[in-house]
Amino acid sequence: MPTAIRVSVIGAGSAQFSLGLVKDLCLTASLAGSQVCFMDIDQERLEMIHKLAARYAGELGADLRFERTTDRAAALRDCDFVIHTAYVQGHHHARAMRDLTAKHGYYYGGIHLGDFYNIRLMLDVARDMERICPDAWLIMSGNPVFTGCTHLTRETSIKVCGLCHGHYGVYEIARTIGLEPQHITWQAPGLNHNIWLTHFISEGQDAYPLLDEWIATQGEEYWRSHVANRTHDIQLSRAAVHQYHMYGLFPIGDTVRRGGWWYHTDLATKKHWFGEPWGGPDTELARPLFVADLEKRIAEMTRLTNDPKASLVEAFGREKTTEQQVGIIDGLVNDNEGQFQVNVPNQGALEGIPGDVVVELPALVNRKGIQPLRVGTLPPKIMLEHVLPEWLQMERDLLSFKTGDRSMLLWHVLDSHQTRSYDQAVAVLDDLLAMEGNSEMAERYRFPEKW
Amino acid sequence: MPTAIRVSVIGAGSAQFSLGLVKDLCLTASLAGSQVCFMDIDQERLEMIHKLAARYAGELGADLRFERTTDRAAALRDCDFVIHTAYVQGHHHARAMRDLTAKHGYYYGGIHLGDFYNIRLMLDVARDMERICPDAWLIMSGNPVFTGCTHLTRETSIKVCGLCHGHYGVYEIARTIGLEPQHITWQAPGLNHNIWLTHFISEGQDAYPLLDEWIATQGEEYWRSHVANRTHDIQLSRAAVHQYHMYGLFPIGDTVRRGGWWYHTDLATKKHWFGEPWGGPDTELARPLFVADLEKRIAEMTRLTNDPKASLVEAFGREKTTEQQVGIIDGLVNDNEGQFQVNVPNQGALEGIPGDVVVELPALVNRKGIQPLRVGTLPPKIMLEHVLPEWLQMERDLLSFKTGDRSMLLWHVLDSHQTRSYDQAVAVLDDLLAMEGNSEMAERYRFPEKW
Repeated sequence: MPTAIRVSVIGAGSAQFSLGLVKDLCLTASLAGSQVCFMDIDQERLEMIHKLAARYAGELGADLRFERTTDRAAALRDCDFVIHTAYVQGHHHARAMRDLTAKHGYYYGGIHLGDFYNIRLMLDVARDMERICPDAWLIMSGNPVFTGCTHLTRETSIKVCGLCHGHYGVYEIARTIGLEPQHITWQAPGLNHNIWLTHFISEGQDAYPLLDEWIATQGEEYWRSHVANRTHDIQLSRAAVHQYHMYGLFPIGDTVRRGGWWYHTDLATKKHWFGEPWGGPDTELARPLFVADLEKRIAEMTRLTNDPKASLVEAFGREKTTEQQVGIIDGLVNDNEGQFQVNVPNQGALEGIPGDVVVELPALVNRKGIQPLRVGTLPPKIMLEHVLPEWLQMERDLLSFKTGDRSMLLWHVLDSHQTRSYDQAVAVLDDLLAMEGNSEMAERYRFPEKW
Repeated sequence: MPTAIRVSVIGAGSAQFSLGLVKDLCLTASLAGSQVCFMDIDQERLEMIHKLAARYAGELGADLRFERTTDRAAALRDCDFVIHTAYVQGHHHARAMRDLTAKHGYYYGGIHLGDFYNIRLMLDVARDMERICPDAWLIMSGNPVFTGCTHLTRETSIKVCGLCHGHYGVYEIARTIGLEPQHITWQAPGLNHNIWLTHFISEGQDAYPLLDEWIATQGEEYWRSHVANRTHDIQLSRAAVHQYHMYGLFPIGDTVRRGGWWYHTDLATKKHWFGEPWGGPDTELARPLFVADLEKRIAEMTRLTNDPKASLVEAFGREKTTEQQVGIIDGLVNDNEGQFQVNVPNQGALEGIPGDVVVELPALVNRKGIQPLRVGTLPPKIMLEHVLPEWLQMERDLLSFKTGDRSMLLWHVLDSHQTRSYDQAVAVLDDLLAMEGNSEMAERYRFPEKW
């Protein structure tokens, strides 16, 4: 007997995400009869998603109902699951901020100001859920997952589970070194965007020696000749292996993309560490491509929407995606148990991190809930040089979010390794807060009384 | 009835310290009959201290016995108290290291490599004490107090109490703003070199408003006109008040001297923040004066030693110093209770810091022991921007000390805000470890196996 649920997607205008979700729901018979409500503030995009979803489900003969609304409260009514995939201030605003910091001498951004707008939206959604659908799960698929999920689990009564794509990097490792991805098992706990491969097993055997052998015999050649086929193709980059050799565990996914400031000082340095042709996803070469690619996909969806004869099943396929949302829902409501990489409050699962901090780790998901595995420890060096400093940064982000203390933003700017003087920090912060699109932040953040 | 004890001074060649201790012992009748053993590896300095101490006590008619030895085990025999004031690698080595880093583009040092030699010596002393005088107190008067005391309390069974001078800064505040130092009470907990004035009370009233008024009405004039009378005269500097206005609590003593990297980028910046004529104690102008001053005092002591007719009481006075060592000893052995600023394992006294980390806070000292006051919390902003990051740095220092992992030294260099590239960090670390005087460290620290 299938179980019909109601799931709402906040920020459903993210076309690729919404259609992936629809696909997975269509292909999950045990959720037949369910309703999907798309919510976004972009009416036009919403229409498109709604049409494509209904057509795709129709082609497959799947029993799903679709709604669309720009009214968040209406979307949340009677919800069992809320998937948050919204991102306030888009790629173009981020680019404008990078352009502005460049005028102050920063290379590619280089400044972290917290995520005021996105954390505020997440909190607004969760507060609405407390009123309207207090028992629903909030599946957080928008960034910042780490800071946002920690804040919501502390400040609201809503059950939150954060999801990210970074952990799929382990399959890239497998493929690159010649292992069958479907034959590996692995474990990579930590914080979101800061996870480390504690276990890497292929056909029952430790596969780290195979990775070591690949690095020893093929690494140099790979770094010389490999040309990334997409901007995020850095899982086996020099930077990743450098971190692995420093820490003894391989960094996975977005972990690689970050590391220390020294991988990121300029384009030539980034190309050395992250490879040709773009130097990883975070450069002036890569980012426009990434954004253009997103826009190309939207254009393709628009074309499909306007061509009623096009086969959507042909366009989107009939295979499930590798996304975890629907699998988790199916586990929770139908007891179809699965193991997932989730971001949930620690409560002792990862040693050395406070209980109320959201960590990323494997969990069994079934009718009993989302139950993380107690993974024990990470090596102390990783804790002291990566995990705990990032925990403090998250706590500073949340404290400044809660207090609106502008001197904490200034401290963030000063904390950037690229900042060269106090006056530079003051000037760039002033200019950032005076930018179009940042006025609510400028209004909210004030210096302490005695400043 | 006085109680006779045996106290050994490790590193007794620090002439000023040893004679201050002798003075305080001479002027503490309840410790009459005690023995003081001076231990140092500098035979000549040892002779001088021993002679001056005996003469000074003789002039005062104090009942104390003095020994001297270059043999640490002999010094520790039957000890009740061991005062560690040794500092391996002196000011001249520190200067040579600064000169070398300057060649790599660093301003005034700018790199932290932990304190391998000093922590190793502290551990050696404590291990000897475990064998020879396991019940004695170790009073740690040498740096690094924070890292060293934490390490010893974790790794040995010796009771350790660390002492520092920084907290006297609160009396400089009182004097500068026109309060009677003897009429104030105060509290300034934290970590060593990282303490914050939570309470500042003059004649029973909160004195912070008086400090605010002084800053408002006289601060600018003071910063324009004040000329430091000694290199460490920075307690009311612009940097101190800037930190106060950022955090709401006044930073005390060496806390001021540190703050953020942005106070320390170059001499002109340091003069702005820490005042004329030297820009605080940590500049190329101030440090030679500080060292010259120490050497002048040694010369003066040598002169006194060679002039048997000189009155030492006239030269050194007959007032107790403001040092805490003898007062603490008197409290512990004679129940002459006092309140002191100590560095002891936290065990819940300061919230938000693990129990086995040594914190600096007020303690009552009497026959019951050294009992810290449970001071509660510091503001979260101070914890997240100062105290907890420094805790992590201490833990990294100890982990690298224990593992001998050279990549952690490299990480320290990279973590310096002055480091501009990975290659620069590698080069300066190589050169530092190849320096004369650093060979044991170079021997000890190795890169990880897969490096």
